[in-house]
Amino acid sequence: MKVDNIKKAIEHRQLIDVLMGNGFADIVLYKGNVVNVVSGEIYKADVAIKGKYILMVGNAEKLIGENTLVIDVKGKYISPGFIDSHMHFESSMLTVTEFSRLSIPSGTTTIVADPHEIGNALGPLGIKAMADEIQNVPNHVHLVIPALTPDCPKLETAGYDITSKDMEELLNYKNVIGIGELQGFSNAKHVYKNTPEIIDDLLASTSYAKSIGKVVDGNAPELFGSELAAHIIATGTKCSCHETTTKKECVEKLRQGVYVFMREGSTQKNMAECIRAYTEDKLDTRRLILATDDMVAADLESLGHMNEIIRRTIKQGVEPVKAIQMATINPAEYFGFRDRGALLPGYLADIAVISDFETMKIDAVFIEGKLVAVKGKLIIDIPRYIYPDEVKKSVKCSKISEEDILIKGNKNYEKVRCIGLIPDQNLTEALEEELKTVSGYVLPDPSKDILEIVCIERYGRTRGIGKAFVKGFGLKEGAFAESVSHDAHNIIAVGCNVKDIVNAANRVIEMGGGIAISNRGRILEELRLPVGGLITDELDGHEVARRIKSLEDTAKNVLGCKVHAPFMHLSFLSLTTSPKWKITDKGLVDVNNFKILSPVIED
Amino acid sequence: MKVDNIKKAIEHRQLIDVLMGNGFADIVLYKGNVVNVVSGEIYKADVAIKGKYILMVGNAEKLIGENTLVIDVKGKYISPGFIDSHMHFESSMLTVTEFSRLSIPSGTTTIVADPHEIGNALGPLGIKAMADEIQNVPNHVHLVIPALTPDCPKLETAGYDITSKDMEELLNYKNVIGIGELQGFSNAKHVYKNTPEIIDDLLASTSYAKSIGKVVDGNAPELFGSELAAHIIATGTKCSCHETTTKKECVEKLRQGVYVFMREGSTQKNMAECIRAYTEDKLDTRRLILATDDMVAADLESLGHMNEIIRRTIKQGVEPVKAIQMATINPAEYFGFRDRGALLPGYLADIAVISDFETMKIDAVFIEGKLVAVKGKLIIDIPRYIYPDEVKKSVKCSKISEEDILIKGNKNYEKVRCIGLIPDQNLTEALEEELKTVSGYVLPDPSKDILEIVCIERYGRTRGIGKAFVKGFGLKEGAFAESVSHDAHNIIAVGCNVKDIVNAANRVIEMGGGIAISNRGRILEELRLPVGGLITDELDGHEVARRIKSLEDTAKNVLGCKVHAPFMHLSFLSLTTSPKWKITDKGLVDVNNFKILSPVIED
Repeated sequence: MKVDNIKKAIEHRQLIDVLMGNGFADIVLYKGNVVNVVSGEIYKADVAIKGKYILMVGNAEKLIGENTLVIDVKGKYISPGFIDSHMHFESSMLTVTEFSRLSIPSGTTTIVADPHEIGNALGPLGIKAMADEIQNVPNHVHLVIPALTPDCPKLETAGYDITSKDMEELLNYKNVIGIGELQGFSNAKHVYKNTPEIIDDLLASTSYAKSIGKVVDGNAPELFGSELAAHIIATGTKCSCHETTTKKECVEKLRQGVYVFMREGSTQKNMAECIRAYTEDKLDTRRLILATDDMVAADLESLGHMNEIIRRTIKQGVEPVKAIQMATINPAEYFGFRDRGALLPGYLADIAVISDFETMKIDAVFIEGKLVAVKGKLIIDIPRYIYPDEVKKSVKCSKISEEDILIKGNKNYEKVRCIGLIPDQNLTEALEEELKTVSGYVLPDPSKDILEIVCIERYGRTRGIGKAFVKGFGLKEGAFAESVSHDAHNIIAVGCNVKDIVNAANRVIEMGGGIAISNRGRILEELRLPVGGLITDELDGHEVARRIKSLEDTAKNVLGCKVHAPFMHLSFLSLTTSPKWKITDKGLVDVNNFKILSPVIED
Repeated sequence: MKVDNIKKAIEHRQLIDVLMGNGFADIVLYKGNVVNVVSGEIYKADVAIKGKYILMVGNAEKLIGENTLVIDVKGKYISPGFIDSHMHFESSMLTVTEFSRLSIPSGTTTIVADPHEIGNALGPLGIKAMADEIQNVPNHVHLVIPALTPDCPKLETAGYDITSKDMEELLNYKNVIGIGELQGFSNAKHVYKNTPEIIDDLLASTSYAKSIGKVVDGNAPELFGSELAAHIIATGTKCSCHETTTKKECVEKLRQGVYVFMREGSTQKNMAECIRAYTEDKLDTRRLILATDDMVAADLESLGHMNEIIRRTIKQGVEPVKAIQMATINPAEYFGFRDRGALLPGYLADIAVISDFETMKIDAVFIEGKLVAVKGKLIIDIPRYIYPDEVKKSVKCSKISEEDILIKGNKNYEKVRCIGLIPDQNLTEALEEELKTVSGYVLPDPSKDILEIVCIERYGRTRGIGKAFVKGFGLKEGAFAESVSHDAHNIIAVGCNVKDIVNAANRVIEMGGGIAISNRGRILEELRLPVGGLITDELDGHEVARRIKSLEDTAKNVLGCKVHAPFMHLSFLSLTTSPKWKITDKGLVDVNNFKILSPVIED
């Protein structure tokens, strides 16, 4: 029994007094259109609030006293506050605090974040630092922690190796409600073949988590049939997947009981496909949930957050109340939230007042009975949060030299393995190309759009550097580097020549993490990301959005990059859980075969 | 962490091996119509089972090996086993064991029982004895325990006073998953006015239960608006109600988030009314659940159990998969069962094979992967369970005399208060009648169908006897008595003359609990109910059904009783949570005003 339980009991006793005629509501939202996500209806009613809680929804005339604040919401919709069920703050490069500032006014009152990135970079130290920051924000933020870092221990090096040994410490830490995306067994068949011991370790972690009442997400892109079943069992049976990309896959997952988190983030947009399982096939929607996964600051600022995703879902032909269920009661039931996700007696008064379903503009937001945002503007103060120094020392490697990244060749022309970038996807192609050897080194050839890509272990553990070639960025000159590279987050760099690659990478090392663009031996532009090499606590969302835009413009206009969101694209080229070829600090990785390949094809 | 969690993890690891190609299923239900309660579909697929668990649902060809038992279920429906979400074994007068024998072949694999009756009679002793018995049965039986006995401490005497002081002991006992029906605050307005201290005590109990992850049912007949909201908050916000009798009430409860347990038992049948919230108004069905509450052995034997209730629900125009959801996944989500209620990978293989939706005959039942019933017949042995002696000593009062129950009068004719029985309802009317006084005593008058009714405290605590008159039974002669009288379960007796009333009551006392019929000073027929005065562990379901039928026939044919199920009707005339007038050991009770009334109206 926690002290919170006792406090709630006392407060609830007072609610009963008011409801039985001894007292009045503090606030009544008067004659709005209530979005009832339990009954699945929208109808005219009042919402009465006392302290942090909803007293009741219905006719609240008798609960209006002299001191009750009556807010006329005629013509507007009163909805439970929205829940983002799976996201990474790191993707926005913002602190929890700055992300909350942007997301609260759009009606998001609960966020479940997976600190997977900072977990790879810093282990428990980083996760706990983020969990500590959560105490700073007025919205409800929960963490689901990684059970395994790095994703593929044989194929890459992270800053810390999280395994089952860390579960007791992490799962019982404040604001932690479970285990997040189970990357370690996403690639089920290949993991089973190559690292079955990982399955034992994950199952120990997930079984422990379930035994203490915690949730376990899954992550099962492109799994079907018995492979999907095996993944589900590894999570302890109740799980979610936020990387479902086709209707067929969505149907399969719902049939096998998976909660499908329809991802609709800044780059990956899967909702329109997944939702066809309902709009076309009329499958039960109770396990369909909306989530963002990865949102960049610019989108949060200009488009909104869950309200925008609900709007898009309604546009696909989903009834508004059903679309709102997918961001309220459906995730609340998945996570076992017993105080949120619906407008019910005794629940927390987390409320979004919606102007209309066409724009999904949010007129007002209440969190725990307190008005926190009006017409898209935050009206409360959330102090900036500065992270402690120990999480700002994640880049521990020394600078690199050109020799470190040159790729040796024996013949005048070498056949090389080249990662083929696919726009807007994490998947890559496996290409063979031919490159010229100069002074014993195989050089990239921008004229054929074949660039060099490197991944530098940045945690001072192995000093490993993976080297390979990549096609698809379109750079004509220069290079860029960043300390964001999924999921181990070593330093990844791509460029037309080794000099600029080394210069950009070394600038990232100097800054202690961030993004840097180099051309002709000179740093053109940069962004410091001191927290774990992933997040800035120095800038607000607006400033981050502006800086990223400027970096992207420079990559495009000066270096000739033809990919939009080039830093995000680059950052996924090290992700070892999606096929085919990726680059890590251990080298060029053949993902499905768990093999490190030489960039140069031997005879 | 319990040892069960570890065992499950080990077993789950073995399932993963099989799914990844190292091994085969033990059983495959081949090419049936799978009732998928998650996706809300019915489609052709196989169900593969290994050990206790479902491996997967889909195409299981690859999982069929040499030693796999392949059962052809073409044309039949494969459904998750059914859940009865709220019931009292005591109502059937059967032990858990005998009830299970009857209910398993009809597809019920999980039962949530409220040992409210034996709790009133014996307190923790009785509840624990029942929890112990549960270890004896192969189906899943869970208890939700009372938080308060008796229902109205000011108005009646039970065998034991359960309060919040007992919660730690009871809620942490084996097979206990929460608190059952919250009778103590059903009559919200009147309880608030008369015994507000009860609310404090209940809230302490429910808050504690929720804090340790247990469920709390509610019970909110005829509550609306703020009264209903107050009841919901007293349960700790997530609750159910199994006494919802009208469509309007069902809509109100769903809107306020209550899980509506649509009751469809032997006497109270509320499903057809409640289901109109869906069939007419199309409300979301995820919180609609089927339950029996009170089933008599004869109905179990002749009609079936949850299969029959599902059949009736389908008859009301509900799609079969939705009706089945109401007895599978909906309750599983309510109770937080994570291993049952759907056919999903890693879930327990609790399965009902349905012949067709028209008859809802059950062809086969599996529990934890084991075939336990075929075509309505149990094929496993469940040993008879004999209760320990200490729960067979619940009747502790001494015999009564005629003087104890005579009602004094002063005038030749007295105006008296008379309980008006309403057929098939727990509610009663408050009538005024005139009766003749003979030798200073007001006598019942069978010619006007005005009988005497008494309630005798049977636990040796107060020796109190309540006396009043009742109209509606239609007895022409004799009397009957029983130790079943809701919810305190004192001895209740009704009759045409004091001699037979005393004789019947004393026979019940002699037997240590049961039912007895007396006529002209002679016991005509009787049934011993030694366990808590409520249950027999001496007879099986068939024998109990036969004996009850015979007792009812005697009451009808010999005494002239015109009410069907007279013993059940009589037993509810002491229920102090439903209006208007009831009889307890403290006297004639004005339920809404919490007052004890004199049977004779003073001038």
